[in-house]
This record gives sequence, structure tokens and C-alpha cells, in this order.
Amino acid sequence: MAITLKEVAKLAGVSRSAVSRSFTDGASVSDKTRKKVEKAARELGYSPSLIARSLATNRTKLIGLVANNFQNPIFLEVFDLYTQALQEKGLRPLLVNLSNETDPEISVQMLRQYRVDGVIVATSTLPSAFSLAFKKADVPVVHAFGRFDPTHHVHVVGIDNQACGRMAAQTLIRHGYKSVGFLGGPKFATSTQDREQGFRQHLRENGIEIQSTHYADAYAYDAGRRAMHELLEEQKVEAIFCGDDLICIGAMDEAWSKGLRIPEDIGFIGFNDMAMASWQAYNLTTIRQPTRDIIKSSIELVVSMVENPDRALETRIFPCDVVERGTLRPMPKS
Amino acid sequence: MAITLKEVAKLAGVSRSAVSRSFTDGASVSDKTRKKVEKAARELGYSPSLIARSLATNRTKLIGLVANNFQNPIFLEVFDLYTQALQEKGLRPLLVNLSNETDPEISVQMLRQYRVDGVIVATSTLPSAFSLAFKKADVPVVHAFGRFDPTHHVHVVGIDNQACGRMAAQTLIRHGYKSVGFLGGPKFATSTQDREQGFRQHLRENGIEIQSTHYADAYAYDAGRRAMHELLEEQKVEAIFCGDDLICIGAMDEAWSKGLRIPEDIGFIGFNDMAMASWQAYNLTTIRQPTRDIIKSSIELVVSMVENPDRALETRIFPCDVVERGTLRPMPKS
Repeated sequence: MAITLKEVAKLAGVSRSAVSRSFTDGASVSDKTRKKVEKAARELGYSPSLIARSLATNRTKLIGLVANNFQNPIFLEVFDLYTQALQEKGLRPLLVNLSNETDPEISVQMLRQYRVDGVIVATSTLPSAFSLAFKKADVPVVHAFGRFDPTHHVHVVGIDNQACGRMAAQTLIRHGYKSVGFLGGPKFATSTQDREQGFRQHLRENGIEIQSTHYADAYAYDAGRRAMHELLEEQKVEAIFCGDDLICIGAMDEAWSKGLRIPEDIGFIGFNDMAMASWQAYNLTTIRQPTRDIIKSSIELVVSMVENPDRALETRIFPCDVVERGTLRPMPKS
Repeated sequence: MAITLKEVAKLAGVSRSAVSRSFTDGASVSDKTRKKVEKAARELGYSPSLIARSLATNRTKLIGLVANNFQNPIFLEVFDLYTQALQEKGLRPLLVNLSNETDPEISVQMLRQYRVDGVIVATSTLPSAFSLAFKKADVPVVHAFGRFDPTHHVHVVGIDNQACGRMAAQTLIRHGYKSVGFLGGPKFATSTQDREQGFRQHLRENGIEIQSTHYADAYAYDAGRRAMHELLEEQKVEAIFCGDDLICIGAMDEAWSKGLRIPEDIGFIGFNDMAMASWQAYNLTTIRQPTRDIIKSSIELVVSMVENPDRALETRIFPCDVVERGTLRPMPKS
């Protein structure tokens, strides 16, 4: 049987109101009383119900964490960092898996039922309709790993995918490549579109046209292999920019299975710097996304919106950097 | 502003009680009334508060999902399957990350505050004190991926790690290996102890003694590399049973970095069959753990405990199987 507030009050020798105030942030109660209450609560195994209290405070300390890609190992790191950082602030993540969901209204319903204090949409592949639906439902929302879009009016924390695509082009040029291909993630994802555009533009400014463009139909290993199979049937290139490390690892495995050597016959540059990119068998040169900064900042933003719902909209963009490993041929001597 | 029950009642032209009953499972209300209420609720964007309702029903439909290893990619699959399967039952996972937590009482406090209907502890590396603490706090608890332990009296769903260790030994013997090593996960984990014991016993019954035994200090890639480094300094063996695929991939990378060929110079067999085990560069022969069955069954058990707190304790054990790939030398012709 659950311990009641009344039993704690009795053991502590204080009023029920004093017990209640002892467990409410900022409520007036003497240190002496609070200590008596805490001692009694510990002895009885009592924990105040955040659920019941939320009806009075209108705060549940629950943050909805919406994700839709559980194939990509980068999200394990994302979940780890989110859950730890939220826990440190006394908040708890309510995980929503939208892998098979296409209707934004359903996810809004799911999270509104629990009266979450706010929502973090943590994906680059959900249409902006999702974060917009939360906003319309008056739920504070931050889109992490999202695209800045002046028309949909939600907080965005992420990277400038065009600039990072340019960075991939610069890296290939620096290594002396002239014949290159693009193997992106799903074509509908804004991250794919932006990375491709920056990549293409920077190459063009340097007199290079992309020889071959293909898209994996998911941010997944098998999808990368299949897209690479098509690319190899069509056109020979010296190096490929893959829109994601997982897709890139699939593409590398496909290249090896065709007898190609990396980087002697074909070079690869990935995107994200997920843990497996540094595994020795792949040793993948890649564009690192500052995952930790994005997560920390998106939590800060959602918390500040809960405290001040009318705060000004913000877009926070963090820079990427290049992690040089072993999948590009050595830079030419200048 | 949040829509109230009163507004829904007004628009639907029914009583407030009729609205309330329309949203309560099993409550008496005509189909006609329910449809009117649902239509009005949709138009107004109303969703009933599970939080408020939980005070009456004593059910929050929240299930605590406790994990402590966010380095191991197998857990991304675990989270994916759990969140989807819980969502299908109208339940929602409250994720608790115990990566840096050693006090069971703190995790109990965290989940009791939200009055979760039940808890699934999904890890083989948390001491049984954690699931026991939930049980003592009268929270229905199931230990998934746990060890059957007649003394701590919680439901357990998992595998027989000893039997699966024997299976690894059988596989190495079948491939003709006589000089073998064991490279386990953390020594304190029951999964490590049980896999080693089954492995050792079956070898001994076949006249083979383990030549070298080492432990990675975490279920992590780097830990596997370091442990393999020590093993190679100490003793030459023909094949190694690694207590986990991630550790095994670290160990393989270390072997390659020392110029060893796999399987010509040294063979490997892993454990879990995580997605990366099938990546071409590793192509790892491994013992497959039936993750999907374990998850489905642990959800069934926790739900049945919520409905019937006095139900008999159960242990559900699922069989493992061998996935033959390319990291063991060919079987000798008989």
C-alpha cells in the first residue's frame, strides 16, 4: 500500500500542510521542519506524487522526447545525453517513437494526455508539420537537429547543413579529388537536401560538377549498400560524400564486396562521427556534428520556454568540423 | 489555453459526466453519445488528462524502462522494440538512465514520483538489488535480460547464459579449435559469470582447458580492445569467445592492428547478434539472443502484474542460436 502524506505528518509530528510545503520548491517551511519531514518520509518510504502535485503546479516535469530513427546508432548517444541531462535538472523524458507514424495529430494527442511540460523533437527527418502541431497545441517545443525555417516559428537547434556540405567539398578538394559522387540520405529529408546543396555549390565554385547522385531510402546500413550498388553500376568516381556515417559504412562494405580498395580505388567521407566511424575496420574520415552541444542547448531552450512561454524565438546553430581518418587518399604535396 | 471537459460537453450537447465516461475504458455510455463526444473533442483539440484521470483509476499507463548501458548498440534495438510494443498497448515508457547510478533507492524514488504502473529493468549488469528495491516499494517489476535467481523473487525474462556459453564452446569444438580463450564483459555482471561457466564446463567435458581468461571492464568497444591487448601479450590462442559482440569487434580491431588475420591466425565468436555483427568488415560469427521475444514477453508480464498484483512469479527463458558467419575457420571435414 502506498504511504500517505498523513502518515508522514504523524511520524514527523507536524501538520499535513507542513509535509506538503516541505516537498514544494520555493514554499515557506523552516529547515528544522523540512528535516523532520524528510527523515519521516525516508523511514516510511514515502515519495510525493508529482502526478498529484502537477494538478496544483501545472508542471509534470515530463519532457516529451520525439524520435523516429532507431536504426541509426547515433541516436543511442542522443538518448544517453538527453536522459542524463534531463535527469540532472529533475526532469524526465517520455520517449515517443514515431518510426511508423505519419500523422502529427496522433503524437500531439499522445503527449498532451500526459501534460508534458515541453517537447523536444530530435530528428532531421520528421516534416516540420510535427513541431508545428505541438506549437499549435500550446506545448513548448524545440526542434533539435532541425532546419531553420522562418515560416514555421519554432525554436530550432542544430547545424547549418549547407555549410557542413561545403566543408565536405572543401575536404575532397584538399585531398585532390576531381571526380566525385554524392550518396545522400532520404531525398525528402531537409538534412539531405541541404548537405547536397552546399556540397554541390562549393564544388561548382571550384569548377567541379558532381558525377553521380544517389539517395539511400533510409538512414540505414542496408539502404547505403543498395544505393552504392546502383551508383557503382552507373558511374566510376574517385570519391564519395555520404550524407551519413551509417549509410557510408554500408557503401564502403558494398565497395569492398566489389573488390575496390579504400582509399586506393575509391575515397569516402561520412557525416556525424558516430562511434563506429572510429572502428579500425572502417576508420572513416567524416564531418563531426556537435551532438552534445545541440542536446544541451535544446534542453536549455525548452526549460526556458516552460518558465517563460512568451520568450522570443531562437535558432541556435553550432559549427561542424572535419575528422580526418583513413578513407581519403593522402593530400597532394603542395 | 487548455480545453476543458465542460467546453466539450457544451459543444457535444451532453452532460459533463457523459464526456468523462466516454473517455474511460469500460464505462457505461451509448455509442451515439460517445461519437458525439469524440467529434466535439476532435474539433476543439481536447485530450483527456491521463494525469488527472490517474488519480481516480490509480493507473498512469506509464511504464518505467530502466537501462544503464547506452554505449552498446544492442540497446538501440531494445529501446525501439520496447517503445513500439508499449505504444501499441496504449502504454508509454518513462526512460531512466542509470549509467552513473549506484543507489537503487534513488531510481525507486524517481519512478514512484510518477506513479508508474510498472517497471521493466532491461539490463544484465545491474545488481538484483535494483529490481528487488522496486518490488519492496510495491511497484510491479520485471527483470529483462536478467539472471534467474530464486532468492530475489522478481519476474525474470531472458536467456540461460550458461547454456548459451556451452553453445559457444560446442561451436568452437565443431570448428576444430583446441586452444581457446575467454574474453568476457565486466566480471561483476552475472551474464559474464554465467557465460564463462557454461563455456568452461562444456570445454572441460571435452578435454579442453581455457588457455587465457580476460575481462573487459565495460560492455564497450574500447574496453574490448584493451582486454584483447592484454590477452595477446600473455598467451597465444587459436580462437576466442567474447562475452559480447561490441567487445568482440574491439578485440578483432586490436588483433588486426597486431597484424593477425581473421580467421586464418585467430578465430572469434561473439554474443548477441547486434546489427553491426553482420557488417561486411566484421562478418562476425555469434550467438544470437532472441531480443524480440524477451521484450514482448517482459511487457506481457508487467501488464499482467498491473492487472493482477498477486499473480505467481514466473521465469521465462528463451533459447539462443548460433549465427555462422566468417570469423571461424572452416569446419574440418569428417
